[in-house]
Amino acid sequence: MKTYNVGILGATGAVGREMLNVLGERHFPIGELKLFASINSKGKEIEFMGKKYYVEVATPDSFKGLDLVLGATSNALAKEFAPSIVEAGAVFIDNSSAFRMLDDVPLVVPQINPEDIFKHKGIIANPNCSTIIALMGLNPLNKLSKIKYVYATTFQAVSGAGANGPIELMEENLLLSDEYKNGKMPINVEYDNKVFPHQIASNVIPQIGSDTGNLYTTEEMKMQNEGRKIMHNPNMSVNCTCVRVPVIRSHSISLTAVCEDKVDIKALKEQIKKEEGILLCDDLDNKEYPMPILTSDQDTVYVGRIRYDLVNEKGITMFVCGDQVRKGAATNAIEIALKLFDIR
Amino acid sequence: MKTYNVGILGATGAVGREMLNVLGERHFPIGELKLFASINSKGKEIEFMGKKYYVEVATPDSFKGLDLVLGATSNALAKEFAPSIVEAGAVFIDNSSAFRMLDDVPLVVPQINPEDIFKHKGIIANPNCSTIIALMGLNPLNKLSKIKYVYATTFQAVSGAGANGPIELMEENLLLSDEYKNGKMPINVEYDNKVFPHQIASNVIPQIGSDTGNLYTTEEMKMQNEGRKIMHNPNMSVNCTCVRVPVIRSHSISLTAVCEDKVDIKALKEQIKKEEGILLCDDLDNKEYPMPILTSDQDTVYVGRIRYDLVNEKGITMFVCGDQVRKGAATNAIEIALKLFDIR
Repeated sequence: MKTYNVGILGATGAVGREMLNVLGERHFPIGELKLFASINSKGKEIEFMGKKYYVEVATPDSFKGLDLVLGATSNALAKEFAPSIVEAGAVFIDNSSAFRMLDDVPLVVPQINPEDIFKHKGIIANPNCSTIIALMGLNPLNKLSKIKYVYATTFQAVSGAGANGPIELMEENLLLSDEYKNGKMPINVEYDNKVFPHQIASNVIPQIGSDTGNLYTTEEMKMQNEGRKIMHNPNMSVNCTCVRVPVIRSHSISLTAVCEDKVDIKALKEQIKKEEGILLCDDLDNKEYPMPILTSDQDTVYVGRIRYDLVNEKGITMFVCGDQVRKGAATNAIEIALKLFDIR
Repeated sequence: MKTYNVGILGATGAVGREMLNVLGERHFPIGELKLFASINSKGKEIEFMGKKYYVEVATPDSFKGLDLVLGATSNALAKEFAPSIVEAGAVFIDNSSAFRMLDDVPLVVPQINPEDIFKHKGIIANPNCSTIIALMGLNPLNKLSKIKYVYATTFQAVSGAGANGPIELMEENLLLSDEYKNGKMPINVEYDNKVFPHQIASNVIPQIGSDTGNLYTTEEMKMQNEGRKIMHNPNMSVNCTCVRVPVIRSHSISLTAVCEDKVDIKALKEQIKKEEGILLCDDLDNKEYPMPILTSDQDTVYVGRIRYDLVNEKGITMFVCGDQVRKGAATNAIEIALKLFDIR
């Protein structure tokens, strides 16, 4: 069997570690494996498929002989190393937002626009996590009638902010729990929050990213900008509000999409059942709908609460939920690689 | 000074207790005070303004001599006692949903439709909590240009489900915290949930209420049905998704409203500053926006994240947050009573 030499840039972060998990689960045919991280992790031992690997610090020479580099690092580091990776002849599948909107870089969700993978010139970008999860739910609808615009409100898990997000939530939860054990029901806790701009336990924070100039945040604009590119739908408008919630893992998104024509809900549900990577979870009477406790630590995006928009007869409202570290990041990147190398 | 004889039906529940707090804070001129609750609370002592009161079980004869009865109980009990209350000559300001949509019952948010108070025939209905909070944010916009339709997604606190909601959340949080202290980061906890249909700790549940027949829940339809009546806007469409979140107190709502004409954001902010009961909290660069940790245990609804809709140039997007037990229930009822009796 043909094997591929693979490097992971940022192998010790939340997404990098999950990339390793998914590579193993999908039986990716790995020859050489190189794990790169910052100086703090240098020499750290990581076991993968029964073999031990030692974390290295990447240099421009590190990528020679590699076929694939998976990027799970900052925009700055992705930009720093991309030229060396491409020059070494490897394909760079990058999870940062550094290259996503460049014309000569495909931005891919393999279930939506797999054909774009093969237009790459050395770099393929992995989309934003909320964008991937929302589009996985919207894609079957878009196949039945082209989407004109979308209203989206996200419920984003703390692990979307990196490995320290869940720790900050749980440390604050501990303080709330201690007070509760003393018979109190506090609203605020005294904690020196560093990951989030405010207390996240027992709170919701309607800010992820910073103002892009139109009072929408960087995170909010990604769903429109990246969504247009992935769906090949340059006129699609997306009004997005991104909110951090005290959930450890899996992003949820409340969506209404208005299409060119009225779409029948039965036909939409049949279409969803045909698609790969999504699951119809929609039985209100039996309390079945997408929720973080159902979708965490696995690859499928759940779609439910499907109903006709009360405002526009050509609109459909739905609720989607998916693990943003898996399908929203690591899994999507590995699925791009599997398609790229035609590995089944 | 003229005083009023007041009864509270459901005085020991979350909303009933808060009604007592607000009566005290607003220096409501109370003569006689009668506290009614179920047989389980009979004889329970409650201190109010330095005096002791004992909880009674209501009978049809309990309301004689009262000027005002505040209802903080179930639809069934509200329906059972309403005729006796009205016959006794008291005004019944009821927080249940039993009477809200009846033609001869005013449904009132005093900052929006105070004139309707005086059309009562013995009963005045207090609106749904999420509806009050959303409309408090939308009302200044509606004054500048009539709202045609609204897209809403709620983030509803567990205390909206009654006094046992926060206990269920905190008990589940304790189990998560125990596992965290043992070095784990669990998704699911083993807890026999009774208040919510699923685990609520580290989860979001996109169901509040039951299907009304169109796959929207009872809670979701209230924002359109009650909103139309309160705003005197029978053609306003509201597409609402209601979601329970692991927050102890204060509901948050992500809103986009499309008006008949384009509204200037500066003019809207000026209008918000003029209104009573709401606070403009909108400075993204300085991380200022409405959040549950800011709005709990007080009466003001916060409005922020105001920006132009990216889909429709006549639309405005915003994020509002308010304490659903206070302005969303108890405070609104007391404010109706203050207007009704012209108490300043």
